[in-house]
Amino acid sequence: MKKKTTIYDIAEKLNLTAATVSRALNNNPKISEKTRELVQATAIEMNYEQNTLARALKSGKSFNVGVIVPRMDSNFFASVIRGIEEELYPKGYHVIVCQTHDQEELETGNIMSLLNAQVDGILMSISNSKTKNKIFNSLSQKRVPLIFFDRKKDISGVSSVTIDDYNGSYLATKHLIEQGCKRIAHLSNDRSLEIFKNRYLGYKQAIIDHGLEFDEDLVIETFSKVAEGRKVAKQLLNLASPPDAIFSSSDFTALGAIQEIKEQGFKIPEDISVVGFSNEPFTRFMELSITSVDQSPIEMGRKAAKVFLEEVDAKDSKKNPQQIVLQPELIVRKSSLKTNLEAI
Amino acid sequence: MKKKTTIYDIAEKLNLTAATVSRALNNNPKISEKTRELVQATAIEMNYEQNTLARALKSGKSFNVGVIVPRMDSNFFASVIRGIEEELYPKGYHVIVCQTHDQEELETGNIMSLLNAQVDGILMSISNSKTKNKIFNSLSQKRVPLIFFDRKKDISGVSSVTIDDYNGSYLATKHLIEQGCKRIAHLSNDRSLEIFKNRYLGYKQAIIDHGLEFDEDLVIETFSKVAEGRKVAKQLLNLASPPDAIFSSSDFTALGAIQEIKEQGFKIPEDISVVGFSNEPFTRFMELSITSVDQSPIEMGRKAAKVFLEEVDAKDSKKNPQQIVLQPELIVRKSSLKTNLEAI
Repeated sequence: MKKKTTIYDIAEKLNLTAATVSRALNNNPKISEKTRELVQATAIEMNYEQNTLARALKSGKSFNVGVIVPRMDSNFFASVIRGIEEELYPKGYHVIVCQTHDQEELETGNIMSLLNAQVDGILMSISNSKTKNKIFNSLSQKRVPLIFFDRKKDISGVSSVTIDDYNGSYLATKHLIEQGCKRIAHLSNDRSLEIFKNRYLGYKQAIIDHGLEFDEDLVIETFSKVAEGRKVAKQLLNLASPPDAIFSSSDFTALGAIQEIKEQGFKIPEDISVVGFSNEPFTRFMELSITSVDQSPIEMGRKAAKVFLEEVDAKDSKKNPQQIVLQPELIVRKSSLKTNLEAI
Repeated sequence: MKKKTTIYDIAEKLNLTAATVSRALNNNPKISEKTRELVQATAIEMNYEQNTLARALKSGKSFNVGVIVPRMDSNFFASVIRGIEEELYPKGYHVIVCQTHDQEELETGNIMSLLNAQVDGILMSISNSKTKNKIFNSLSQKRVPLIFFDRKKDISGVSSVTIDDYNGSYLATKHLIEQGCKRIAHLSNDRSLEIFKNRYLGYKQAIIDHGLEFDEDLVIETFSKVAEGRKVAKQLLNLASPPDAIFSSSDFTALGAIQEIKEQGFKIPEDISVVGFSNEPFTRFMELSITSVDQSPIEMGRKAAKVFLEEVDAKDSKKNPQQIVLQPELIVRKSSLKTNLEAI
């Protein structure tokens, strides 16, 4: 095995000081662009591995942080990642992301991969309720901080940043009731995940609090896909007593429902009002803009990153896990606004 | 420093064979779910680092592959990543992703991070034309394969998978001409990047080939953002002789242009036809669906992954870089279809 390249080897080759090489490798702005490129290119050529040095030095850090999300192409998760990056880049960290497509074995596999990649911490949104607590318990005992965002599990010692899904749903359902809707259906999702359970409970409580009849037949569990929304809407419209509003736990199923409702000749919001959840950009772009619940994803990402920074710097001190809960905001648009107020 | 944990240590602790531990760590389907979880949780607890072993063994691989994209929240890049995963997961690789937000220092920084994370290869789409060839030249000399997709640079020894942007643009512009459009504007982007240069050239050639007048005033360089599309459309509509069609190199600017055109009271496609590029999902979802050029992103990802697999297994044999070019497809929708044919 060849001897490992050190910054001293690079410094010698380029006739620079080791301090300059170190700064260039860390993108220090004091180093000129030309020198930085030269040093980085040489480091790559000489097979320099930054970790090797970092681990031998006092920081012991790789300055890579791993993020695991169910999918990175939803605007919600992409925005959380953006928030994480905004907070961590100025501190010299790089963010690497894995997605699980809601598959349990990918969730565990990604955790292993990120640990192999020697990340300094893992920020993750659970995709599958089946991933066993054993894995997370083991992880929480490691030196590597684990922080949950959005979809979490209750694991002792693990911090989390979530939004108040219950309240978001409550606000959305209350809004529909105030618009005069009386039979409000709910498109739910896997309720073994806390977020979907809480969205269901907030909806249910708003119905009860406003003296409407709670009808379990109007609650349908589905997946967050446009095609699923169409299918479920068809089912609801075929009921003897169809709903006059749909509150969906996902913008994607809300969109599918809207397509089906329009195709069957009903008017939105006059005949049937629709509200989604997540405030995906298309809800704003549509000609019939869709009312949705905004989850402040950038703020969620920033907060999760801040918790990571506190934990990674806390070293061996006893962990004080934080449970941060952000408040969601209802964005009212055309798909649910029957009154004369101006839609956004 | 403590002694490194090996699979033998894990096997001893759990009273299993080393082979079983190894299979469980690699998610081998022959191992029961219960055993797999137990082994993985124990590996995490015991600070087992898979790389350490893998590198000492014959494969020398980390089984992590790095992907670098300008942004992961565009459907195009998300789909390429999906294609890469579909091809690599069955081969036991995990995919970790970094985004650059079109910033040059993040591009270099991400390359360094992925090398530090000891990936077996890097698949990337260039985001910034300023990233110096020096970095890529150094990388191409390493053991780690580098493969470009979509946005590439011509670096000796580096394979690439791209689509025929020139032809995609040519098809789109020809379609607008066949719909009777005579003054077709083009929303371009940074033309020091090959893809935008080629989209521009394909557009220009179609104009010339069909005997229309090529007017440089109708070509505007902008960024791929909805707000930019609005701004540029306003500019075009203010011309003494405004265009009767807009071919945009981005779906996002096409969307912005559509919003502005409608706001000014023009009809689409009757007064002004609009065509985008990338076939982002919202182009299909809109009530006024948007004609766009599909780039077969899943196939692009799969092809790039296949090239990686060939190169990583080729070991020390001389590299035979491949330049794979996929053919794009024009998807005609309402925003440009004036004839009686059925829009998709």
